Amino acid sequence: MADCSFCSIAAGETAAEIVYSDETSVAFLDARPLFDGHTLLIPRDHHETLADLPEHQVGDLFLLARRLSVAVRNAMAAEGSFVAMNNKVSQSVPHLHIHVVPRVKGDGLRGFFWPRKKLEGEQMAAAGALIRAELSD
Amino acid sequence: MADCSFCSIAAGETAAEIVYSDETSVAFLDARPLFDGHTLLIPRDHHETLADLPEHQVGDLFLLARRLSVAVRNAMAAEGSFVAMNNKVSQSVPHLHIHVVPRVKGDGLRGFFWPRKKLEGEQMAAAGALIRAELSD
Repeated sequence: MADCSFCSIAAGETAAEIVYSDETSVAFLDARPLFDGHTLLIPRDHHETLADLPEHQVGDLFLLARRLSVAVRNAMAAEGSFVAMNNKVSQSVPHLHIHVVPRVKGDGLRGFFWPRKKLEGEQMAAAGALIRAELSD
Repeated sequence: MADCSFCSIAAGETAAEIVYSDETSVAFLDARPLFDGHTLLIPRDHHETLADLPEHQVGDLFLLARRLSVAVRNAMAAEGSFVAMNNKVSQSVPHLHIHVVPRVKGDGLRGFFWPRKKLEGEQMAAAGALIRAELSD
């Protein structure tokens, strides 16, 4: 897509530190990483979010994310990995990208998932009913 | 696995607000959500991290994550979603779980991905070489 910086990287028109490339996918280092080795995996085709990715491409893309989760961890001598994608909100480039981030204990990212609230039973039942209804549509 | 709280939920031995269930996967609400509707998707079998999930199960699990990303967003009248997993570090329960979190602009999660550092060219080339080497092993 014109004016998409990730399409431009996939097409070789914008320079990036590419760590993996095949016919359908490209992985490259995030230019502004959370930590060194922070990699972005994208489908070559322009799809905005996970929901927009055609079903038949989901398996291969996440098999690659799985492989990268190990490669990035090992390459950076890390202890674990964080694999994540933002759909729409907090998505800086509207071209689906899976973050693969090396993690070590005490690296400072823990704060993201905490603190959380304790959900009341009623609220939880209500949210559950709404999600089940969406899934059954 | 004995003593795994998510295996216990999958087996129906521990109560949870289950939003989806099939032969291989279960999705239920996180008891301490980031936001209402925060869902956890797990494989029924005990696998600790994404790398431990057998290859043939990856496609189906992420097709379901894709489907949940839409259902959770719609159910909670949100604008987008965050789909993520922690492998080892920050992983509170050592049974692979994919977080599906509804997102709206200004909900306060943006801080997680910022601020970041700008990576120097040399550092980036070094990290890239390490990851490529791991992938080619």
